[in-house]
Amino acid sequence: MNWDLLLTDCRAATMSPGALAYGAIEDAAIGIAEGRIAWIGRRQDMPKAIVKEAARLGGRWVTPGLIDCHTHLVYGGDRAAEFELRLKGASYEEIAKAGGGIASTVKATRTAGIEDLVASAALRLAGLMGEGVTAIEIKSGYGLDLENERKQLRAARRLGEAGLVTVRTTCLAAHALPPEFAGDSDGYIEAVCTDILPAIAADKLADAVDAFCEKIAFTPAQTRRVFETARGLGLPVKLHAEQLSDQGGAQLAAEFSAISCDHLEYVSEAGIAAMAKAGSVAVLLPGAFYALRETKLPPVDGFRRAGVPMALSTDHNPGTSPTLSLLLMLSMGCTFFRLTPEEALTGVTRHAAQALGLGASHGQLKPGMAADLAIWSVERPAELGYWFGANPCAGIVKNGGWVKRCA
Amino acid sequence: MNWDLLLTDCRAATMSPGALAYGAIEDAAIGIAEGRIAWIGRRQDMPKAIVKEAARLGGRWVTPGLIDCHTHLVYGGDRAAEFELRLKGASYEEIAKAGGGIASTVKATRTAGIEDLVASAALRLAGLMGEGVTAIEIKSGYGLDLENERKQLRAARRLGEAGLVTVRTTCLAAHALPPEFAGDSDGYIEAVCTDILPAIAADKLADAVDAFCEKIAFTPAQTRRVFETARGLGLPVKLHAEQLSDQGGAQLAAEFSAISCDHLEYVSEAGIAAMAKAGSVAVLLPGAFYALRETKLPPVDGFRRAGVPMALSTDHNPGTSPTLSLLLMLSMGCTFFRLTPEEALTGVTRHAAQALGLGASHGQLKPGMAADLAIWSVERPAELGYWFGANPCAGIVKNGGWVKRCA
Ligand SMILES: [Zn+2]
Ligand SMILES: [Zn+2]
Repeated sequence: MNWDLLLTDCRAATMSPGALAYGAIEDAAIGIAEGRIAWIGRRQDMPKAIVKEAARLGGRWVTPGLIDCHTHLVYGGDRAAEFELRLKGASYEEIAKAGGGIASTVKATRTAGIEDLVASAALRLAGLMGEGVTAIEIKSGYGLDLENERKQLRAARRLGEAGLVTVRTTCLAAHALPPEFAGDSDGYIEAVCTDILPAIAADKLADAVDAFCEKIAFTPAQTRRVFETARGLGLPVKLHAEQLSDQGGAQLAAEFSAISCDHLEYVSEAGIAAMAKAGSVAVLLPGAFYALRETKLPPVDGFRRAGVPMALSTDHNPGTSPTLSLLLMLSMGCTFFRLTPEEALTGVTRHAAQALGLGASHGQLKPGMAADLAIWSVERPAELGYWFGANPCAGIVKNGGWVKRCA
Repeated sequence: MNWDLLLTDCRAATMSPGALAYGAIEDAAIGIAEGRIAWIGRRQDMPKAIVKEAARLGGRWVTPGLIDCHTHLVYGGDRAAEFELRLKGASYEEIAKAGGGIASTVKATRTAGIEDLVASAALRLAGLMGEGVTAIEIKSGYGLDLENERKQLRAARRLGEAGLVTVRTTCLAAHALPPEFAGDSDGYIEAVCTDILPAIAADKLADAVDAFCEKIAFTPAQTRRVFETARGLGLPVKLHAEQLSDQGGAQLAAEFSAISCDHLEYVSEAGIAAMAKAGSVAVLLPGAFYALRETKLPPVDGFRRAGVPMALSTDHNPGTSPTLSLLLMLSMGCTFFRLTPEEALTGVTRHAAQALGLGASHGQLKPGMAADLAIWSVERPAELGYWFGANPCAGIVKNGGWVKRCA
């Protein structure tokens, strides 16, 4: 055995399913070779190996690198002015006049050059990565025409090029109606399906296709049209489903074997059952729940009973979830949604990987999987959901290389 | 004029009261001498001065250093295990058996040596300071006997000794009933007033005296006894008031010219009026509101109408608010309590200073005041309440010296 890196003097939360909470290994050793986990287990069981670099972690906990599986990280401008206006009591009209809402983000994103989009998103990404995030999904959906959706997705791909973080891109052209199609949502969906998606797929700019199925966005019939197109292009689908009302989106997505349905506050029992059967992950987004001051909780007990895997994500976006802390989502997942700390941590590791179609290679500490690790100055994994607004991340390893070395 | 440091190419949110939002100065210059602000105004109006060091801030915003005016930062252990047990559905009895609740923190604090208390609190303090906090209040209240209250307050003082942060200490011996006085709260209050407080005052270990007036803690009559003792010792008072029910604590505190009343979800109109007359600051604590999943909002409109200044603070403590982000409290103050971003920022600067009796020297950018500054990579001050789980702090100056230099 030849290992590039050996970690010892640590405890491992492997997050592999099984009898042990967190898949924990006390006094663990982790051998890494060629960017992957070569061996993990109790130190006393460690095989003989030739080791290039050995690091002792001072008893710290090691988890899989965190995975933020639902973000809208690439966009122009922000919505702080609108946030302030609203809190100062401005009316809906005054805010619209001042250029608020998603339309303002679409405008700013269309205006921005790709370099600006990459630069502003890179700053935000650095905030997320500082907390141990090693993989992230980034959606388009503020371009809303071929040129600008392509620009957003190219910017997203660019963010992963340095290899410090895995970026998965999702085309969310069916996010909102662009101004040039006002009053003609069928016409826009037609353009999405005949123009935008095929070109994005041909350029290999998207790993998945998403849509927003809601009264204020697109109908189930329009969503079905988008999913059929995605299927024809060989792309997996996900859905912004039942955030504000029950549209039967979960069932529809399940028909297309969606890898995830996201938000889900209003999902029905039938929707949960369909997701369970299809193997779709329920991605819960407590940041938007918080910022929108929602009170309707997603049916966590229903997901548990049906065996639907739950993930947690920031849903980072400038309008309804301008957060840059995935750890805070663990706290909010526990506090608002009553997840256990173990469910919350599973939701940003193993289940988040599954929601991105990366379940076979990411999200667990397991031989053969990517050597993406986060190292934590905590006494027990539950602390990752217990503290809020704190960052106990002491070290980060990406594909076997140090992104942040333990002090 | 001789200035040690001159800051230009910046915008200043002075937080001084007046017609301008945030007391803003566009294209500002700030001259600093002998640890204090010597001059601040529009760059074009800047007087001639001999300058030791000049720094250009790239258009960034400068605010007063943030002030966290209500914390229980010094303690032994944490309560992550209890947090996890509760979310796994453990009963109250099971948690008590496993050693939960404030009693477990008292036990861990009494057991800890002062070096351990300083070390664990210093790590937490570093988290707060990384977001631009330059002054903090730290309460005792987990010792609950003279020796251990003294130890907690000494540890708190120790944290300020390096001069990187101003520490104000508050004796909160009347926080909870220690086990050795079980069933005899009057006896404990007698010990607080005749034994603990006079000794703490003689050692100059406390800048103020606090108490917890609540059904689950001490009665108004017992609180009055504590306040009378404080007055006799020449110490200002504050109060944990009306967090869970209306005890008339605000009126009682106002009688003693309390510098602040804290929590206040259940304060009455009469309580608000008394606070307004006494000049007491209302310290709002959204972290505890969040962690306890409270629904009763503090009467923000009532405070506005009565002209009661509102501060915001972390209430950092291991049981009900294990947060290490004062910026997150700005977001939560805006989101939960509907403060405007300007009210929220005033609440961690000018009003927080007032809640600590430091209103004449801290909390504004004003000639003569301490040169405690935070420098932010934002386009407008509202962003400090808009983003959550983000840290745009780019630089920190304490008493005129760099704690964190802008990149
Ligand atoms: Zn979304
Ligand atoms: Zn408190």
